[in-house]
Amino acid sequence: MSILNLPILIQDVAATKADIDAIVGDMGMLWMLISGILVFLMQAGFTLVESGMTRAKNVVNIAMKNVLDIAVGSIVFWFMGYSLMYGSSNGWIGWSGFMYNQGPADLFFQTVFCATTATIVSGAIAGRTKYTTYILFSLVMTAVIYPISGGWQWNGDGWLAQMGFIDFAGSSIVHAVGGWAALVGAALVGPRIGKYINGNAVTIPGHNKLLATLGVFILWFGWFGFNGGSQLAWGGADAVGGSMVVLVTNLAASAGAVGALFLSWFKYKKPNLDMTLNGALAGLVSITAGCGNMTEGGALIAGFIGGIIVVFSMEFIEQKLKIDDAVGAASVHGVCGAWGTLVIGLWGVDGDTAIGLFNGGGSAQFVTQLIGTLSYAAWALVTSFIFFFILKKTLGLRVTEKEEVEGLDLSEHGTLAYPGKRQREIED
Amino acid sequence: MSILNLPILIQDVAATKADIDAIVGDMGMLWMLISGILVFLMQAGFTLVESGMTRAKNVVNIAMKNVLDIAVGSIVFWFMGYSLMYGSSNGWIGWSGFMYNQGPADLFFQTVFCATTATIVSGAIAGRTKYTTYILFSLVMTAVIYPISGGWQWNGDGWLAQMGFIDFAGSSIVHAVGGWAALVGAALVGPRIGKYINGNAVTIPGHNKLLATLGVFILWFGWFGFNGGSQLAWGGADAVGGSMVVLVTNLAASAGAVGALFLSWFKYKKPNLDMTLNGALAGLVSITAGCGNMTEGGALIAGFIGGIIVVFSMEFIEQKLKIDDAVGAASVHGVCGAWGTLVIGLWGVDGDTAIGLFNGGGSAQFVTQLIGTLSYAAWALVTSFIFFFILKKTLGLRVTEKEEVEGLDLSEHGTLAYPGKRQREIED
Amino acid sequence: MSILNLPILIQDVAATKADIDAIVGDMGMLWMLISGILVFLMQAGFTLVESGMTRAKNVVNIAMKNVLDIAVGSIVFWFMGYSLMYGSSNGWIGWSGFMYNQGPADLFFQTVFCATTATIVSGAIAGRTKYTTYILFSLVMTAVIYPISGGWQWNGDGWLAQMGFIDFAGSSIVHAVGGWAALVGAALVGPRIGKYINGNAVTIPGHNKLLATLGVFILWFGWFGFNGGSQLAWGGADAVGGSMVVLVTNLAASAGAVGALFLSWFKYKKPNLDMTLNGALAGLVSITAGCGNMTEGGALIAGFIGGIIVVFSMEFIEQKLKIDDAVGAASVHGVCGAWGTLVIGLWGVDGDTAIGLFNGGGSAQFVTQLIGTLSYAAWALVTSFIFFFILKKTLGLRVTEKEEVEGLDLSEHGTLAYPGKRQREIED
Repeated sequence: MSILNLPILIQDVAATKADIDAIVGDMGMLWMLISGILVFLMQAGFTLVESGMTRAKNVVNIAMKNVLDIAVGSIVFWFMGYSLMYGSSNGWIGWSGFMYNQGPADLFFQTVFCATTATIVSGAIAGRTKYTTYILFSLVMTAVIYPISGGWQWNGDGWLAQMGFIDFAGSSIVHAVGGWAALVGAALVGPRIGKYINGNAVTIPGHNKLLATLGVFILWFGWFGFNGGSQLAWGGADAVGGSMVVLVTNLAASAGAVGALFLSWFKYKKPNLDMTLNGALAGLVSITAGCGNMTEGGALIAGFIGGIIVVFSMEFIEQKLKIDDAVGAASVHGVCGAWGTLVIGLWGVDGDTAIGLFNGGGSAQFVTQLIGTLSYAAWALVTSFIFFFILKKTLGLRVTEKEEVEGLDLSEHGTLAYPGKRQREIED
Repeated sequence: MSILNLPILIQDVAATKADIDAIVGDMGMLWMLISGILVFLMQAGFTLVESGMTRAKNVVNIAMKNVLDIAVGSIVFWFMGYSLMYGSSNGWIGWSGFMYNQGPADLFFQTVFCATTATIVSGAIAGRTKYTTYILFSLVMTAVIYPISGGWQWNGDGWLAQMGFIDFAGSSIVHAVGGWAALVGAALVGPRIGKYINGNAVTIPGHNKLLATLGVFILWFGWFGFNGGSQLAWGGADAVGGSMVVLVTNLAASAGAVGALFLSWFKYKKPNLDMTLNGALAGLVSITAGCGNMTEGGALIAGFIGGIIVVFSMEFIEQKLKIDDAVGAASVHGVCGAWGTLVIGLWGVDGDTAIGLFNGGGSAQFVTQLIGTLSYAAWALVTSFIFFFILKKTLGLRVTEKEEVEGLDLSEHGTLAYPGKRQREIED
Repeated sequence: MSILNLPILIQDVAATKADIDAIVGDMGMLWMLISGILVFLMQAGFTLVESGMTRAKNVVNIAMKNVLDIAVGSIVFWFMGYSLMYGSSNGWIGWSGFMYNQGPADLFFQTVFCATTATIVSGAIAGRTKYTTYILFSLVMTAVIYPISGGWQWNGDGWLAQMGFIDFAGSSIVHAVGGWAALVGAALVGPRIGKYINGNAVTIPGHNKLLATLGVFILWFGWFGFNGGSQLAWGGADAVGGSMVVLVTNLAASAGAVGALFLSWFKYKKPNLDMTLNGALAGLVSITAGCGNMTEGGALIAGFIGGIIVVFSMEFIEQKLKIDDAVGAASVHGVCGAWGTLVIGLWGVDGDTAIGLFNGGGSAQFVTQLIGTLSYAAWALVTSFIFFFILKKTLGLRVTEKEEVEGLDLSEHGTLAYPGKRQREIED
């Protein structure tokens, strides 16, 4: 063996190093792709939660809204949303031409996030909103509203990213934007007939709580991809980091369920399923921003408080604001989305460094989190108000009273979810 | 440090290269295994779609058929199907002895594909077919019919593979074979009682459209594994390729849903859920062959046209051919399977090279695609005709009129899906 | 290029080797994490199976129990259970302080296993047990009973691990412990009103067999993670090994379904869905211990016999022991869990080496398996008896007769699963 091999050997070693880097990148792509597939199934979870928690006469309509969200959202986000969000940015808005993307795994992952944002609104305005109105809303949300504000943080050049704002998987970017839009939509479209009698809120019970429960389990399942995949990489610190994200996500969801379970037990004298389910979702939303910046204990407390908050928030919106949010979307996604964003500033960590007000990390991060939280809230409230207001004055938001009483399934879609001789009597 | 280290070092570097190759292989195995697990869940999706789109009195029967498909299919495909498909082949049929396989991940992945083919038939002949007949059909399909023709392409020595035919994940191999067999089965078993009155088709509405919707979401979810896993590898170009497959699969499904949604709206004056769901499935089938050979835009158009085709095809089969395909399986899987196979010859690409008639790639690929499409159609039509015809003349295909009216759940299985005092009145 | 590069090159190569080892570790973490996510969804599967196989008036209660299992289980297992199981051990019990863990992916994976054990009990005692009782049981099971005995084998220093006992994914550790506890619970809480009339068992039919079927498919799906993820690694022999585990898991489940299907057909003259579904689950439990130590044929036979056993066991427990196990949990998880543990000693293999009585491997392994099986049975029977007995004498296990007749959903949770005007008449 000759010394002449040495240069070749050096090249070989360099090539090997490059191969290893490529493999780490490929593992990251695999994790992101699988995570995106899990997130996709959240559409099914939302469909079940929204249907199960509302009346049988509007089930087809809810299914049609959720299928549409992913179908239209996938197309328009690919066509222009991704470019507005991840294209070359001036800090406020990006653009790199139509059909721009930075690779198929990333585009797919971001697409299913985008569809989620639209879907959040679907449940809040269930049972009385025109289908055409919803299509237009979903289109505008996935093509414009979500991508622009999403880029403020998830585009590296976004102004919030530059400021040091943290929203790992989107408590504000996805959930609060969806939740606040849901609140505006529910307010402008007005309450369902029979929701308020003499000013008092009446419970309109969901028609299938088993499927609502299944829906929550599916959402919880998909959320592991939602939060875990937001690591955007796998290998070394990223493998441990991604696993930690999944772990604390599960702890926060668990604590949220427990918090709402016991609070509802205390308040209503019986452990309440609807509240427990919303508590689990509240816990999930509460950890979505901070899942990369929380200890296990911190995540647990964040989720637990989220489970408490959601109970009070739902009461407040229903009874004080008198806004009929049919599934509590504004509380779960909006209020808890804000909470989840802020809590990083209270007891968040960055690796081993405390960055929160309460764990000795100072107030800088909290202020930044507050700015981000308020910015996303303001953006979502204003843009969705403008949109829904214009629609209200033109096409109209709401079906007629007769159509609403009959149910949207018959009036908007000409069919029933459970067509049997006696369905109408049974399910309503 | 001595120069004597050099030979050892060279060996070390070579070992490292081998390790890297092994890791890339292991990543491929991981992706294939996870994909297979996703595809497995499609059995649940089919069960929900088929049940939800038919009557409540036949739900247990449909569940029993789908459980049987995966149970019997897994056993017989392991025992002999895999060998017929992937064994040493003369181009037309393979064989390497019973219980042959090329590794557990591959066998598992191919097994769940095989079960899918059988399941497609289940829905078309729902509501009037004997359970024994179905068991025998499922056995023959998974042991013989599917493996033989599958090997024409997916066995490297198969005559279609040798010819340059492309069917990446099985628009023809899996879906069209299942779909055409479904058509033959539905024709030979005859329409359900009450389907045609004075020669006019009557809609027999599905009993639970929420679960049908859940089923479609689960199928869509599983399809990411079905198409993506067909990359059969992960790492480098395969990682980007596999991600691209998932991306275009989602775009085609979305476009199929949108196409059918708007066409149904236009034709029937209201946006129709059944059609939208079938449109999403049609979009998925339409991209299954070409998901490795389509641009994003090409996939979108392929899926959109699939969503249009399925609406017209369902009408044609129901109203012109007067074949009662209870869930539209022949249209979704057969007709759109053929479409998905052919479209590669219209605007397919091979990397950066155009291979389609309409994108300047010439007509060679189209002719090859046509030969493959027709071959799979002929094979499925003829073999399933022979099988169902023999059965019709011997055991009989159909339950008695009394049993059919009563429902297969009671007559064939002695139970009801929803046993409550008043079920019969409610659901029928 | 100078010879002086050589030392650096040697360092580079060593670093590369370390990188490769790290990547293999990271792939293992990825597989374990994804597997854990799949196992999580089994909670939804259990909820559907347990609900679907019992009455509509107790659905909310079952949902509340399953949500609680994962929520409380995740918290207490993190807080102390993991440490009892995997902490520094004297062979019988471990401890390394509160909130101990060996990495987030491992903790998450073990957490979802723990929750499964508790959930198994939920179905057996459905329809008459106090919710407070169940909460306390779930707490004790996930904090103490499961972790202690789990550590006997899965803590490397456990006395059963030291003895050479094999229980790859927990036929005994998870399923039998849950199943025997379910048997004790069902015995002590007593049969549902109307279950035994003049000493004869009366079938109380499940209210939704479609959702029970969906539940079984989801469990089967999650079980691929349950068994496959128990490889705890990926890469090289572990990649092939993990794939093989998934393959034989599927074969055993299939054979279990087929076994129960045909036996029920023979015994009851019609192919029975409930039995077929329980047969699939029985097949899965029967391969859970041996999935790393079975040939494909061995797995098939193990699963098939599991499917036979479960039919006879359910009859025996219901009709001879007169214990009302509402979903057959003791048979599926307890009896088949024991069977699955023992079968390794009958025809198990260790790589290419036979280790079973019937395949010429001698009797040593069988004796070890028997000791482990009996130890887990004794532990679960005794600890759960003590627990349920104390509770029976203090808080009481059972709701009042009036509450039971009314349904636990109303009496314990103040709501109905399907609130519609006529629900009560319809579903009961």
